[in-house]
Amino acid sequence: MYLSQPLHKALREAPGRTAVVFGRRRWSYAEFVDRVSRLAGALKEQGLRPGDRVGMLAINSDRYLEFFYGTFWAGGAVNPVNIRWSPTEIAYSLDDCDTRILIVDDAFASLLPEVRRHSESLNTVIYAGEEATPASMLDYETLIQRADPVPDVVRQGDDLAGVFYTGGTTGLPKGVMLTHANIYLNALSTLTAVNRQHSTVGLHSAPLFHVAGLSLTGQLFARLGTHVVLPQFEPGMVLRAIEEEEISETFLVPTMLKRVLEHPDFRRRRLDSLRFVMYGAAPIDGKLLDRATEAFPQARFAQMYGMTELGAVATVLPPWSHTPEGRKAEKLRSAGLPIPCAEIRILGPGGEELPHGETGEIVVRGPCVMPAYWSKPEQTREVLDEGWMHTGDAGYMDADGFVFIVDRIKDMIVSGGENVYSAEVERAVLTLPQVSDCAVIGVPDDDLGERVHAVVVLKEHETLTLDALKAHCRRLIGGYKCPRSMEVRSELPLSAAGKILKYKLREDHVRHARA
Amino acid sequence: MYLSQPLHKALREAPGRTAVVFGRRRWSYAEFVDRVSRLAGALKEQGLRPGDRVGMLAINSDRYLEFFYGTFWAGGAVNPVNIRWSPTEIAYSLDDCDTRILIVDDAFASLLPEVRRHSESLNTVIYAGEEATPASMLDYETLIQRADPVPDVVRQGDDLAGVFYTGGTTGLPKGVMLTHANIYLNALSTLTAVNRQHSTVGLHSAPLFHVAGLSLTGQLFARLGTHVVLPQFEPGMVLRAIEEEEISETFLVPTMLKRVLEHPDFRRRRLDSLRFVMYGAAPIDGKLLDRATEAFPQARFAQMYGMTELGAVATVLPPWSHTPEGRKAEKLRSAGLPIPCAEIRILGPGGEELPHGETGEIVVRGPCVMPAYWSKPEQTREVLDEGWMHTGDAGYMDADGFVFIVDRIKDMIVSGGENVYSAEVERAVLTLPQVSDCAVIGVPDDDLGERVHAVVVLKEHETLTLDALKAHCRRLIGGYKCPRSMEVRSELPLSAAGKILKYKLREDHVRHARA
Repeated sequence: MYLSQPLHKALREAPGRTAVVFGRRRWSYAEFVDRVSRLAGALKEQGLRPGDRVGMLAINSDRYLEFFYGTFWAGGAVNPVNIRWSPTEIAYSLDDCDTRILIVDDAFASLLPEVRRHSESLNTVIYAGEEATPASMLDYETLIQRADPVPDVVRQGDDLAGVFYTGGTTGLPKGVMLTHANIYLNALSTLTAVNRQHSTVGLHSAPLFHVAGLSLTGQLFARLGTHVVLPQFEPGMVLRAIEEEEISETFLVPTMLKRVLEHPDFRRRRLDSLRFVMYGAAPIDGKLLDRATEAFPQARFAQMYGMTELGAVATVLPPWSHTPEGRKAEKLRSAGLPIPCAEIRILGPGGEELPHGETGEIVVRGPCVMPAYWSKPEQTREVLDEGWMHTGDAGYMDADGFVFIVDRIKDMIVSGGENVYSAEVERAVLTLPQVSDCAVIGVPDDDLGERVHAVVVLKEHETLTLDALKAHCRRLIGGYKCPRSMEVRSELPLSAAGKILKYKLREDHVRHARA
Repeated sequence: MYLSQPLHKALREAPGRTAVVFGRRRWSYAEFVDRVSRLAGALKEQGLRPGDRVGMLAINSDRYLEFFYGTFWAGGAVNPVNIRWSPTEIAYSLDDCDTRILIVDDAFASLLPEVRRHSESLNTVIYAGEEATPASMLDYETLIQRADPVPDVVRQGDDLAGVFYTGGTTGLPKGVMLTHANIYLNALSTLTAVNRQHSTVGLHSAPLFHVAGLSLTGQLFARLGTHVVLPQFEPGMVLRAIEEEEISETFLVPTMLKRVLEHPDFRRRRLDSLRFVMYGAAPIDGKLLDRATEAFPQARFAQMYGMTELGAVATVLPPWSHTPEGRKAEKLRSAGLPIPCAEIRILGPGGEELPHGETGEIVVRGPCVMPAYWSKPEQTREVLDEGWMHTGDAGYMDADGFVFIVDRIKDMIVSGGENVYSAEVERAVLTLPQVSDCAVIGVPDDDLGERVHAVVVLKEHETLTLDALKAHCRRLIGGYKCPRSMEVRSELPLSAAGKILKYKLREDHVRHARA
């Protein structure tokens, strides 16, 4: 299994078909593979050896897909950098897995001096933006034009394909290692669970740096489809792309879908090409689904649930569960059925397997589960037990095999589709001299799904404003992780063992919100 | 990737669902896995170690599926024996890969004394028939009842899953080694190419000893579906099973489909559960498809093309190509598009890659290609070149990526869905003292697709009847390989290099047939 396989197939089966569209740039498969093999040549000229990592810090573009496949073609492993991180976080993730080559675009070129100051590994920076290339960087297009195309190294199977950093409960991001087999199989397995047509047109508007971005890319390449890439999610651009490029499938988390349906252009655009909408991050609200079904009568809907450590997807709620007939079975709050490559068990507190309907920790086994966190054997042992990945999510399986997510055991907030680990935010808040104690929780939010909310206990005679809290945090952690709301308490609810009872904080908050 | 994975999933997702139906026997997934794990225990008690082969010589039954999965569960590799072979051929295939345990049913128990006489490897014979167990054999049900269930050994990935014997151009059958990854991926990949519903009811009437049988089994298990097994193909039984078990998908080669449509019960049976008909071995005739579409208006059709060495399937002609709309694209004579795991090239006589539309040898690369023939490094090198499997089939790819099979380069006849290698039959014919030269070809046949036809040159003053030829061959090779028709010539057409020009013989024959 080699992730570059679809490109070899396309050269024979569909060389003239459009592979990638980004703004005015359109590349046929023959052109795309030519660029990929030249980028691979350029990376090798820059010293890349098989297994070495290449990073990319950029919003979405055609070049993001070239980065993925050019790196694979050269035998390297991708390190797609989270665009919401601070320069110190970025430097940490580059150094942790010794990433020496980084591709950067306009949006992030200005961060590079500070990233460089903090990073020991970073050596070569390639500028893939649209402006003039800064003097300290190599120019992406020049490299591609000058490099000779090289043959595919064809790394495969258990060879490393990428390192994907996720926030950690301990505060330090962990690099999830995924192999060619992990990602290749996950894409195929997800395709069997929610089949789509051969050679269709897919739209990428969610960030490609997420592992889900690579998974969706693989699902479309496996069918030699056309990728239309938007720089980022913007509902008006999504609507325009669907009409102009006759998009047939896309991924939109429920909050994105809501914004698309509420956009003023919505009624003006011709949208009947859309046949398939995947979503994730959260179940879809029944009312939102009603509106979406009315708006896109041709479209089927499917939810995907997973996590980076699982090679992206673990369960799929099939289109059938979204139809008026299927909704009678009441699976819409479920994350769906395990895909063919994923075995799922529900474990009780003692590690015993629980029967249908009982809530415990969701653990997953199969050929898509990561082999390890990068150079973190201890954290790997904590989550991987004889091939079973402990997701940290609490849930149950019903008698029909559908998995329901009840809560996150790991203390994590999903805000606007991003994972935020409470512990990391708490560490930042606790460095404020005014604060004696702190608990960070997710509270319901109409726009973000969940909002990062800080509950603080102040030292005697101290005061703290939300603005001061935000400004302080923003210096330490990515903006999306910073608290957007705050409450001050005289003390935090503790268990007998002295552990903060976050569920009590959440309960209170829900009660407040309802009042 | 472990082929037993669906069973582990089923224990959690659908333990009460029916896994296998054979006549009056019905096993739920929980019961089936229990039997599989007990059979694995019994095999281990009989001395099976990880990687060892287990053979089965039987027509189809529920026990054939138990043999597959019980062997995998015990860590062994299956050796499904061709039921049309002679005892000497059977013994050869057992000895070649050192198969010590053989499961046999009523239909073949009587062959065992002769197989034993010829085989050095065969040690333990397990009787899985419905009659009284012969004294020299162990009783299958007793073994299962007495054995303790054992945990799954979970062999996976590149571990050997089976050895599948195919006739060889050199006369000796070759054992195609297929790994867990080969078969697992091929099933998933075929599923993405022709998606079918989750948890449907599939009907097996084609022989399970073919690799296609295991592939179809895997495709259904991956969706936790129900297997209905018929002992063998018989059109009346197929029709009855479709009605009684509400079959939704099945595999029928065109000649089988024709017999089903022509059966007197056809109009009497309720057949509207059938949603999907796969076929193989040959393209479907347009008129036959018209009749089938009329007969099964709910059903989609798809062709699969492949060979044992490719893990079963390499291309799929999608349902769309079979619709009135799709048929305008004129792909019905094609074998379809390469599935996601298969890269296909067309090579010219000098090994150069040919452009679209030009006919050459079809070569295939990908993670489903066999690693090797069992202990035949020379024959392996002849067909496997840097991962590319030389199929021996001649064909071309059109500009849309569809593969058309033009002819078989390897001198092979497909008669009634079975591969017959001319060289093997010629060797048998040439041992007749009356014969001075011989060429065996396939000629068109209404029932069999192709019929084995011998063209012989007799020695001076000798005579030969077809009956004598048949009787002689039947002592040496399987009955289905024996010539069914014969012509006597004074000489064979030869090329300048002295090679028999078989295409001339075939041309003449077609002309004769039309006259």
